[in-house]
Amino acid sequence: MKIKLNENYKNLKESYLFSEVAKRVKAYSAEHPEAKIIRLGIGDVTLPLTASVIEAMHKATDEMGVQATFRGYAPEHGYDFIREAVAKYYLERTGVKLELDEIFVGDGAKSDIANITDLFGDNEIMLADPVYPVYMDSNLMRGRKVTLLPANEANGFLPMPPAEKKEGVIVYLCSPGNPTGAVYSAEQLSEWVKYANETGSLIIFDSAYEAYVSDGSPRSIFEIEGSRTCAIEICSLSKTAGFTGTRCGWTIIPLELEEDGRSLAKMWERRQSTKFNGVPYVVQRAAEAAISEAGRKESAESIAYYMENAKVLASVMREKGISFTGGINSPYIWLKCPGGMGSWEFFDYLLTKFGIVGTPGVGFGAEGEGYFRLTAFGSHEATLEAAERLRKGL
Amino acid sequence: MKIKLNENYKNLKESYLFSEVAKRVKAYSAEHPEAKIIRLGIGDVTLPLTASVIEAMHKATDEMGVQATFRGYAPEHGYDFIREAVAKYYLERTGVKLELDEIFVGDGAKSDIANITDLFGDNEIMLADPVYPVYMDSNLMRGRKVTLLPANEANGFLPMPPAEKKEGVIVYLCSPGNPTGAVYSAEQLSEWVKYANETGSLIIFDSAYEAYVSDGSPRSIFEIEGSRTCAIEICSLSKTAGFTGTRCGWTIIPLELEEDGRSLAKMWERRQSTKFNGVPYVVQRAAEAAISEAGRKESAESIAYYMENAKVLASVMREKGISFTGGINSPYIWLKCPGGMGSWEFFDYLLTKFGIVGTPGVGFGAEGEGYFRLTAFGSHEATLEAAERLRKGL
Repeated sequence: MKIKLNENYKNLKESYLFSEVAKRVKAYSAEHPEAKIIRLGIGDVTLPLTASVIEAMHKATDEMGVQATFRGYAPEHGYDFIREAVAKYYLERTGVKLELDEIFVGDGAKSDIANITDLFGDNEIMLADPVYPVYMDSNLMRGRKVTLLPANEANGFLPMPPAEKKEGVIVYLCSPGNPTGAVYSAEQLSEWVKYANETGSLIIFDSAYEAYVSDGSPRSIFEIEGSRTCAIEICSLSKTAGFTGTRCGWTIIPLELEEDGRSLAKMWERRQSTKFNGVPYVVQRAAEAAISEAGRKESAESIAYYMENAKVLASVMREKGISFTGGINSPYIWLKCPGGMGSWEFFDYLLTKFGIVGTPGVGFGAEGEGYFRLTAFGSHEATLEAAERLRKGL
Repeated sequence: MKIKLNENYKNLKESYLFSEVAKRVKAYSAEHPEAKIIRLGIGDVTLPLTASVIEAMHKATDEMGVQATFRGYAPEHGYDFIREAVAKYYLERTGVKLELDEIFVGDGAKSDIANITDLFGDNEIMLADPVYPVYMDSNLMRGRKVTLLPANEANGFLPMPPAEKKEGVIVYLCSPGNPTGAVYSAEQLSEWVKYANETGSLIIFDSAYEAYVSDGSPRSIFEIEGSRTCAIEICSLSKTAGFTGTRCGWTIIPLELEEDGRSLAKMWERRQSTKFNGVPYVVQRAAEAAISEAGRKESAESIAYYMENAKVLASVMREKGISFTGGINSPYIWLKCPGGMGSWEFFDYLLTKFGIVGTPGVGFGAEGEGYFRLTAFGSHEATLEAAERLRKGL
């Protein structure tokens, strides 16, 4: 072929994080077939979809099997019923009022976070380090210049705006954060909003973990005054309602957001109606059920289950004097490896001494070296057993 | 804001086609409330999902409601069960053998057709005119230079390779075609494959209407010798099994396709694993059922129903001496407006004289002027009634 390929792909690093984890676990298991390995590295939910959601999916499936109620192409941005349900969810949970035209329902936060790069020209990108790799890779694929903001002990793993007022930057914020589990306060987010408005910058706010907020910290960037002129929010039901294998989320683009008379909401509408064909009808009904009153109650129980695990892990960390963040407004515990161990060193130590698998922090960025992520998505039994092993031996 | 936006969006034309159609129909209905309007402009299926598909969706929904069988994140490219089902579908229907690593399951042809532009640099794009607007717009969004190949009576609405050997071009072919319904023969596709291999060009083959092929014409570009070194195929279950509101399709990228040692399949794998999170589990099971033996039989009945409509419309065209293409291997009838009428003129004529709504051909490109699209997706009753009206008055 003589086709020119996207040269930017050459700048992507292959991530060997999870394959390397799998490789080391496999090798250990082969040598110690008797070992009962406990997996606390998992970044995926494990509890099933709740009763309301399942009921809605069965009902929608039945509708799809009958001509009178069958649905073909859906509106690319979601049926009104789901846009209205999202608006209601925001209003009741955060007090934030949204227009339906600002709510774009999609197949999950990952797609929208990555695809929204389509709308932009050559702006500087600011990301935390460590960070969710999709922010980085989707921008590298477009050849963007990325500046990293260290998230470390000094700033409580919550980078704040740089002293230098850079104009027209795109900043990604995730709160509660992945992988660190740290959550921004309203005051901190206000500083970011002020910075963005002063510099004409744009905040892309990833609220995928909003359902885990338990201490009154903001769930949405739109709780912050001034945010409607500088922020887009992307959320998902993956961690809120166990939709990782069901796929539904949304992007909120305030109608105020425009540049040179061009509306970002209109551009996204054009992007999606050209390059996306809507979320399956059954999934839209599932999502509607998930954020209904009944669905929210059920999801809260699942989240409470996970957060009980987080408490168990956090209490061991405290007992052992290991410093950590997360575990309060997040299913993630981000801990500093004890004894000055490196991330992979601690991985091997946990695996070989305790039969526990976690995720080396350095896999999320260079600043993650010396840190380690444990998650609360395991079962109670496994988590309690892991805690017991650590309590005895660490 | 001081954010740089994607300037290429300024080159997109707003399509007023379907909104203008809706506006004119509404105005006519308001003036003639008694008129029974028949819609033959619809590009969407109308028959419900079939029994096997519905059964599979119920079963998968039940699995998602129980912890032991719940599924979280799916592999981005589809579970093995669906990749294997697609491989079997190809082998049994076309004799084409595919490796599982060449099959990428996604949420439909539209997304994949548009998103595959991510992989390429600044190549010249060749498209038919008239054409499915997504080929054009997704390339304009990336600032690509597009060359149009007229599809007209002279070439049977099937553009063939240009005399000039252009190197490294990306050509989009759709067969059976939307909007014209014309289908390439094996000989014609062989000429395209030869051209592509000689010039180092790439064919993106849209086979979304393959299930409508009835006369032995190729269903897949991979039936053509030499295609594995110059073609990607994108297909969908939308028109095959009524999945327009359920969303599943696939992209086939042969392992041979590489440029400068870089594999296109690997690049697409990287694109999708960064910017997409897989098709919902219930939809993957629905798709598996749709292309199972039982599912194929059921879909064939739905397609036969639509094609019976196509026959009815085609016979009226013949009776009235109106020249047309399509209707044999396609649910679309692409007709030349009688009496030298323009597309919109004929639209108004059909609407006001017969109460029939179709789609003006010029909406699909300048070469569509003077043409008109009718579809077979209506009910038998409505289609027969439309035929009767036309028979009497046209």
